[in-house]
Amino acid sequence: MMKISPSVASVRGFLVAGVHAGLKKDGAPDFSLVVSEVDCIAAGVFTKNKVKAAPVLLDMQRLDENPKSIRAVATNTISANACTGAIGLKNARATSNLVADALSIVAEQVLVMSTGVIGAHLPMDKIARGVESASANLGSDWRAAAAGIMTTDTRPKFGSITMETADGSYSIAGMVKGAGMIAPNMATMLSVIVTDAGLPLPELQSSLRAAANQSYNRIVVDGDTSTNDTVLLLANGMSGVSLTGEEEIAAFQEALDSLTRYLAQEVVRDGEGVTKFITLNIVNAETEADAEKIGQTIGASVLTKSAFFGSDANWGRIMAAAGRAEAPLEPDSASLWVAAGESSPSEAPGLEIFSGGMPTDYREEDAAAIMAAPSITFTLDCGIGDGGATIWTCDISHEYISINGDYRS
Amino acid sequence: MMKISPSVASVRGFLVAGVHAGLKKDGAPDFSLVVSEVDCIAAGVFTKNKVKAAPVLLDMQRLDENPKSIRAVATNTISANACTGAIGLKNARATSNLVADALSIVAEQVLVMSTGVIGAHLPMDKIARGVESASANLGSDWRAAAAGIMTTDTRPKFGSITMETADGSYSIAGMVKGAGMIAPNMATMLSVIVTDAGLPLPELQSSLRAAANQSYNRIVVDGDTSTNDTVLLLANGMSGVSLTGEEEIAAFQEALDSLTRYLAQEVVRDGEGVTKFITLNIVNAETEADAEKIGQTIGASVLTKSAFFGSDANWGRIMAAAGRAEAPLEPDSASLWVAAGESSPSEAPGLEIFSGGMPTDYREEDAAAIMAAPSITFTLDCGIGDGGATIWTCDISHEYISINGDYRS
Repeated sequence: MMKISPSVASVRGFLVAGVHAGLKKDGAPDFSLVVSEVDCIAAGVFTKNKVKAAPVLLDMQRLDENPKSIRAVATNTISANACTGAIGLKNARATSNLVADALSIVAEQVLVMSTGVIGAHLPMDKIARGVESASANLGSDWRAAAAGIMTTDTRPKFGSITMETADGSYSIAGMVKGAGMIAPNMATMLSVIVTDAGLPLPELQSSLRAAANQSYNRIVVDGDTSTNDTVLLLANGMSGVSLTGEEEIAAFQEALDSLTRYLAQEVVRDGEGVTKFITLNIVNAETEADAEKIGQTIGASVLTKSAFFGSDANWGRIMAAAGRAEAPLEPDSASLWVAAGESSPSEAPGLEIFSGGMPTDYREEDAAAIMAAPSITFTLDCGIGDGGATIWTCDISHEYISINGDYRS
Repeated sequence: MMKISPSVASVRGFLVAGVHAGLKKDGAPDFSLVVSEVDCIAAGVFTKNKVKAAPVLLDMQRLDENPKSIRAVATNTISANACTGAIGLKNARATSNLVADALSIVAEQVLVMSTGVIGAHLPMDKIARGVESASANLGSDWRAAAAGIMTTDTRPKFGSITMETADGSYSIAGMVKGAGMIAPNMATMLSVIVTDAGLPLPELQSSLRAAANQSYNRIVVDGDTSTNDTVLLLANGMSGVSLTGEEEIAAFQEALDSLTRYLAQEVVRDGEGVTKFITLNIVNAETEADAEKIGQTIGASVLTKSAFFGSDANWGRIMAAAGRAEAPLEPDSASLWVAAGESSPSEAPGLEIFSGGMPTDYREEDAAAIMAAPSITFTLDCGIGDGGATIWTCDISHEYISINGDYRS
């Protein structure tokens, strides 16, 4: 995996801003703008929820009709603009009109994202203030831009990577918001990724899909998915580096994969009330898809997550969750290991706690010492094939319940 | 729905006991026995989890080979005897041998159930003490018997119904344990139901399957399913009433449905840390199976359950959960209603809070007054078909996390 920088130095031709539009009560950034100085090709990955927010519907249409001259992405917090009917669509369009006017471009070049409470209409006076302020403050402050898309997130999440090629260097930078409701299919997750590389549109689209599948779709905070999930990728070509060969595209994919995986893991680490970061390496399942299902079922199990919170190496709950996933599993062929920290499937899996249908004779104090760590890796060897997948998840705490019992009020 | 008595007067020829075998530390009943004076026909419904406990494997085999001369069901708590390999199967058989010896029957006439921690072996000395004590104390104390199968349950759950026929009366009685880990497919739920009616074995088997599908499989506490779920139905015919006609069997089915629904709802009411009982009436979905999927996805949503805990009429989370169920849904055709108390789909659904893709102009104080009730019914009219299903679920509280963070230790 390539090294990601937790900051953004420069992606040529992109300017960002995060400002306070009056949406949040505490004066924090609540509106964000990402702008390219020239036309971008753009791709999107959206929620699979059948209840789709207005900004999702609008962006899907714009990327379908106009994927080659996108200039800006505007994001507001507090209102998700979901379940808002015709007014919601009108407001999403109105937001893009305001951005277009401020930047002297046309509305069809603007994408919009919203996050917050479902069912509340966008306060268009505040949105107008946000557009005005953000367009007047465009620069390179990615921290502010990433802060401007946060809801229950506790910190802005962004990063970048620069690639050297024979024709010069190009960069990819991105930001993400998440916190609660994160699950397979990217629940309540918004992410904007930009690059100054040039590449063909079909490759841009397929690379984003592939990157999302191995990152945002492999994290589980609480198993819920949302109405607003959106990941956008804009490429403006201003680095002068044009990626056309198979090898060049593969290198771009690897960089994009690393960046999105970094951002996805940041979302888990900053999950609501999270005290533990859990890596689930599922190996030797019948297929990769089976491995993913098993990992996601374990990661979404509230019982298992409660055990993580209690620092309990409860392999029984993990195996029970694995056993109810819709994937082949033979308990007698399976082994489960636990280790402190994050390890990849290629590393030593640590302490074996389950094998051949039964717990091993491991010592509870050894398991307890591992479980006390803030980051823990479980490796489940299914022993029936060669399919593997890694899922990142977390525990569930009292604080999660408090946050989500009170969120709307 | 027929009226269930929260007690058991008499089911002819059945004796029960619940005793302290030394498994629980606090001296509470921890071992239970249900015995018929004569041979019973018997049916079972078991967990679909691929990780099946030893008692499940043994009972499945016995009901397959010997479904017409069952005499007893023995249940222990504290150890689930799951993930215990060959020793576990040996111990499950040994338990049945002990019961057979004490009752002067053969081991093949004994079914066994276990609940508790996964991976711990049965302490056979204590099991022997339980068998000895229970077989010496057989009587009609269903409260003690139901207490003897409890884990984190806070109260014994049992009930009965008596049916009058032209040939005399017969009764059906049952007990259940549940608490956490309850979900579609009956997680960590054990239930024994007995009747003194006589009926053919195929009808007994199909009636239990149908009853379980509309009761134990329609409750959701936390979305997890277990290694040990078992529902057993024993019929000894000692009432002298023999059910053979279609109408008689239908009346038996209705009574069994009512009893299992009562017991299933008792499980939800006694869920770990539960503060609210939620009825989800899903109506006018494309099919009944779709309605069930939608209801179960809402019921298992941790975000939605957190909102219930916070007494928040968060229709947005409910619609978002409905939208990610694997069933057709058109938000613009759907309506959502909320009412205090329990209502069936045929009753007035209360306050409409969502319609035509948007919230209605309901007053938050009206919704808040309803949400303050300990029992709440949501009715989701999908508006696209005539499939319906009712799911019973609950909120998730801080106490749930505490119970399940600490349970094993």
